[in-house]
Amino acid sequence: MAKKGSKKQAPKKAPALRELLRIPPGGEVDLSSYDPEALPAGPKKKADGLAETTLMGERLADLQERLYAASTGGDRRRVLLVLQGMDTSGKGGVVKHVIGLFNPSGCRIRAFKKPTPEELNHPFLWRIVKALPEPGEIGIFDRSHYEDVLIARVRELVPRSQLGRRYGQINRFEQSLAEDGVTVVKIFLHISAEQQQRRLLERLDNPDKHWKFNPGDIEERALWPAYQESYEIALERCSTDAAPWFLVPSDRKWYRNWAISKLLLEHLEALDPQYPKADFDVDESRKRLLAG
Amino acid sequence: MAKKGSKKQAPKKAPALRELLRIPPGGEVDLSSYDPEALPAGPKKKADGLAETTLMGERLADLQERLYAASTGGDRRRVLLVLQGMDTSGKGGVVKHVIGLFNPSGCRIRAFKKPTPEELNHPFLWRIVKALPEPGEIGIFDRSHYEDVLIARVRELVPRSQLGRRYGQINRFEQSLAEDGVTVVKIFLHISAEQQQRRLLERLDNPDKHWKFNPGDIEERALWPAYQESYEIALERCSTDAAPWFLVPSDRKWYRNWAISKLLLEHLEALDPQYPKADFDVDESRKRLLAG
Repeated sequence: MAKKGSKKQAPKKAPALRELLRIPPGGEVDLSSYDPEALPAGPKKKADGLAETTLMGERLADLQERLYAASTGGDRRRVLLVLQGMDTSGKGGVVKHVIGLFNPSGCRIRAFKKPTPEELNHPFLWRIVKALPEPGEIGIFDRSHYEDVLIARVRELVPRSQLGRRYGQINRFEQSLAEDGVTVVKIFLHISAEQQQRRLLERLDNPDKHWKFNPGDIEERALWPAYQESYEIALERCSTDAAPWFLVPSDRKWYRNWAISKLLLEHLEALDPQYPKADFDVDESRKRLLAG
Repeated sequence: MAKKGSKKQAPKKAPALRELLRIPPGGEVDLSSYDPEALPAGPKKKADGLAETTLMGERLADLQERLYAASTGGDRRRVLLVLQGMDTSGKGGVVKHVIGLFNPSGCRIRAFKKPTPEELNHPFLWRIVKALPEPGEIGIFDRSHYEDVLIARVRELVPRSQLGRRYGQINRFEQSLAEDGVTVVKIFLHISAEQQQRRLLERLDNPDKHWKFNPGDIEERALWPAYQESYEIALERCSTDAAPWFLVPSDRKWYRNWAISKLLLEHLEALDPQYPKADFDVDESRKRLLAG
């Protein structure tokens, strides 16, 4: 976001959130150096964060409509939001509170669970390709192909050599998406182990939330360091110029929702989708309509 | 909704909207006898309608969460909202404003357009079955299998004998859905020809809405009486106890949105979905979690 052209004193502009939260391609990632409670930009208080997120909703829905409208005129661009994070990091909360700001008819949401036997009979990207957004849509992946280098690594679900090849396969796949007009926004919801413990306890303490709890979550939690390491490797190897990773501090739900709304807003504004021009004679249609 | 039991003077309760708007199974339907501007129950003013719809949102989202939660405990019930109506009757507006009140992760939305060659190679219900909601979900059909007795009738896309069989096929299909736990809510958005003309003119007058306009809409409009007749036949033959049709006066957008929200609320309240009981030892999980 370096200032371009004019040497006049321009008003200082805050760096875009997507610059601040992006994992720089090619660098090393040490998750312990990122504070899950950080507020790297934007509102500092919950009330302000909630208000700003609500306000962004109108602009987000407007840009989404333009993106969809543009697709009817042949624009193939679309957005794919990839949500990854430990259990309770808030993937579902983001869908509810952030994606809930959009028109549901233009959202294609897919939650990836443990692969089915049919899915396991195919290359790991098979089920991913089938769930991609179409031109004009906002796709949302709640978990994604990254599970195939995360739980697959921690649980040693595939031989190490096969795992090692997947990072390159993912990068080539995402590169091809970008070339096809897909803006890939990959978000790692960064929470602390303590925050996860609090959220799991909340689920246990409230009978209306027991359905969200799985005793297997406790075993997964015991593997926390191995998961963090797997995330570090995925963020290091797969944050590319074509499809960078963003790390969103997520111990505070209101900040997480604000930051992801803002990231989507910045990406949609950069796309700057336009309503297509009429491909018919407007005046003639008006005459026929008034005559009918 | 007859009063049951007690002979004491109970407070008078307004009949449920779903009783008022339901097309009685077996009767004749004359669409010209229904006023598209009617306000048969509920708010009489736009501001009140908008406020009541917003207020309903919280209850709708809560019931949706319960429905979804229940499905994780084995409850197979789900809802299917079928939206039908002439061009500009507001099917898209309902998805945006009413379905927008729900958590998008539990909504399965499908807009049915002109059948593809692949779809035409299959029975007309083939593409419908593939788009059905799963247990716990709210499915939304923007147009549906009813196109196969509406435009198919008006445009004579299939032989009359084949068309005639479809009504029975639809009724048996919907009956089987009901038996499988699908609450089918079929809504006909009733607008006047004049209202359609106004809305089409609005699209022509606003360049940002040209993408929504198709000159073919004018030819379809010329077939208004034939479409009304096709709707009358579909409503007569396919309003069944298992899956009744509801007629929603839709010349006023705020009333349409209020009425459909209210219909969904009444159906969800009747389902009364419950959070499932924990199938694990809560205290033991809490201990393990606190130890970890």
